[in-house]
Amino acid sequence: MSKNVYLDYAATTPIDKQVLKSMLPFLKQNYGNASSLHTPGRKANQAVEKSRATIAHATGMQNKEVIFTSGATESNNLAIKGTFQALNAKFNSLKKLHFITSNIEHHCVLDSFAYLKKKYPKNVEITYLPVNEKGLINPDILAKALKKNTVLISIMMINNEIGTAQPLKKIAQIIKKQKKARSQDQNPMPIYFHSDATQAPSYFSIQCSAYGLDLLTINAHKIYGPKGVGALVIKKGVLIHAINHGGGHEFRKRSGTLNVPGIVGMGKAIELAEKNRDKNIEKITKLRDYFLNQISQKLKRIKVNGSLKKRTPNNINISFLGVEGESLLLLLDKKGIYVSTGSACSSNSLQASHVQLALHNNHLRAHSSIRFTLGKFLLKSDLDYAVQEISKAVNRLRKISQGINQKSECKKS
Amino acid sequence: MSKNVYLDYAATTPIDKQVLKSMLPFLKQNYGNASSLHTPGRKANQAVEKSRATIAHATGMQNKEVIFTSGATESNNLAIKGTFQALNAKFNSLKKLHFITSNIEHHCVLDSFAYLKKKYPKNVEITYLPVNEKGLINPDILAKALKKNTVLISIMMINNEIGTAQPLKKIAQIIKKQKKARSQDQNPMPIYFHSDATQAPSYFSIQCSAYGLDLLTINAHKIYGPKGVGALVIKKGVLIHAINHGGGHEFRKRSGTLNVPGIVGMGKAIELAEKNRDKNIEKITKLRDYFLNQISQKLKRIKVNGSLKKRTPNNINISFLGVEGESLLLLLDKKGIYVSTGSACSSNSLQASHVQLALHNNHLRAHSSIRFTLGKFLLKSDLDYAVQEISKAVNRLRKISQGINQKSECKKS
Repeated sequence: MSKNVYLDYAATTPIDKQVLKSMLPFLKQNYGNASSLHTPGRKANQAVEKSRATIAHATGMQNKEVIFTSGATESNNLAIKGTFQALNAKFNSLKKLHFITSNIEHHCVLDSFAYLKKKYPKNVEITYLPVNEKGLINPDILAKALKKNTVLISIMMINNEIGTAQPLKKIAQIIKKQKKARSQDQNPMPIYFHSDATQAPSYFSIQCSAYGLDLLTINAHKIYGPKGVGALVIKKGVLIHAINHGGGHEFRKRSGTLNVPGIVGMGKAIELAEKNRDKNIEKITKLRDYFLNQISQKLKRIKVNGSLKKRTPNNINISFLGVEGESLLLLLDKKGIYVSTGSACSSNSLQASHVQLALHNNHLRAHSSIRFTLGKFLLKSDLDYAVQEISKAVNRLRKISQGINQKSECKKS
Repeated sequence: MSKNVYLDYAATTPIDKQVLKSMLPFLKQNYGNASSLHTPGRKANQAVEKSRATIAHATGMQNKEVIFTSGATESNNLAIKGTFQALNAKFNSLKKLHFITSNIEHHCVLDSFAYLKKKYPKNVEITYLPVNEKGLINPDILAKALKKNTVLISIMMINNEIGTAQPLKKIAQIIKKQKKARSQDQNPMPIYFHSDATQAPSYFSIQCSAYGLDLLTINAHKIYGPKGVGALVIKKGVLIHAINHGGGHEFRKRSGTLNVPGIVGMGKAIELAEKNRDKNIEKITKLRDYFLNQISQKLKRIKVNGSLKKRTPNNINISFLGVEGESLLLLLDKKGIYVSTGSACSSNSLQASHVQLALHNNHLRAHSSIRFTLGKFLLKSDLDYAVQEISKAVNRLRKISQGINQKSECKKS
């Protein structure tokens, strides 16, 4: 019997039936443009505003603070480049703008910073915080990295490859202190805190105030919603320039006809994430623990990447020493088990994951890693099948690589 | 009996059933991330590439020349800002870059240029071509506006408000001549031709070579496809920088997880537009002529805005003199007839349409205009009903405004 065990929920999730059901009227009879003044337009607009209110509620923000985008990549680009542009226009003559991020952020965060640094070398300086071997930032290092001209700190909530949960609340305390000092020093520079929470909503609160966040990135297709839609939550007063210009949609922060069905689906996905979070955490934690336990019993020479304690319950990232991750991925694929070696975005690259290297700087270990990400449609029996096949495949690959090693040792001797 | 007569197809279109059917598997069981290496990922990727090939075929370009975006606004922003950034990086030290566009372009084109001019005043100069009273550019004026440093000409194929079809082929000839002259003068500056063809594919060929285009913007929701997806076709060799940075998707020109269902739907929408173009033109031209004929018989003091000859068959834009367009829109809305006063994007603004003013600079006429845009789901009986209700509403509004004018004249005397 052919199985289909999807263990790549961090790459994308199936759409929840309730989400699709909420979208269908807007893919069918309710097709109005949300900017149109007539009844079909107003119906579309009402649906958009309902979704905006749901997200505002989930993030503890005002409706007007929620900006819909085409996804997390656009949201992160907007958060980073948009605040830079606004603050550079305001403080350009005064001094350089300093940014803090971590070296395990998603490519779209790192590449946005790299773009700024390359394009505005005189106006931008960036500190990339290291992580420890558990994949966690040290808030003390962040505190020491702060400068008088630090304007934005961008630290992801949950890492997409190894699932570690960063100490955002501690960072918020440090920023609060810094703000107080700036106020005393009459330093006019704002300091914003942004987090890419793409991987979070199914398992973590996304209340901005709980983490002291000024900017929050979320998207839909990682939480059982549709692809092609995301949001950037922007606290009132944050200085930010639009990237896309046009009709002035989204409070002049993001132009373009609103993707009504996508936005409706995203609202439903966030609503379900909020409603089912506790249930999801319980279910997925049990499955994850069971999976890890079974794998550990069946296979030796494995290493879990990233803290097991400060982690989203749905991610388990394992290095199978002596095995090439991509070969394992392809063998499992043949058995109907779908995993990834890193983030989906960099799947086509042969480079070792920058996240893995940041933890242990061990290329062999990085190349032997597999990301298993679990989700709500998984059954225990799926995991039993997966463990069995993973075990077979790893043993097979280790035998092959042992053979190659022996051969090359023969040649050497 | 309550009617629903949608006459706002230029704002957005219902999704064709065949389009939705093509999308549904990707909203349900085929949920893979197109960047993932496993089978679900490859299935998603194959669907994306099929859609890319459809669009490449329709535009007469190579697959690699088709870049998926979140819609026409993003495509136009990318075309304009992306080429500026690339060319500015290359020629910055040499001279200013000169752009030519028209003053009846969509807001996202005009606002992208305005952004460049504001942000790079020393590096950018822009010529806005006027249009004649028929809403058409004069190619001779464009030829005279050309400079040695003109790098991009952006002229829309079909105007979204008044439906006029610009003389792109003539412009292409002028550009060809210019290119020849530059080659003789050893002028290294390229000159690109971009067109926003958002309103075109249902009624006009979008073959880039037919118009000498280097860059072409299209989107899905104006041609019976889904909202939230578009494309920018970029001819090989065109220098362009990405706006969104991240995983390096879309040949490093547009990062972000691909909106697989949207892209599949867009491919199907383009396929249908190609297949049914002749049929659509015939049907819609008949309906449009019938509608205009009926309206002209029933009402005096009306003026059609824009050339009737050089025009998309689905647009008829009429000024009902003595009537305030928005009041008419709202009265018709109550009768289940859905029209617009200008583009949907600027519906919330009380300013007179920049397009109308460019034609006749008559604020009263601009404010009395209504855009009727027809589409393939319309019936003749819908138009009979619409004509009857438009006639009633216009007469009613004219009576009211006459009353007001008489009163104010009484006060004066």
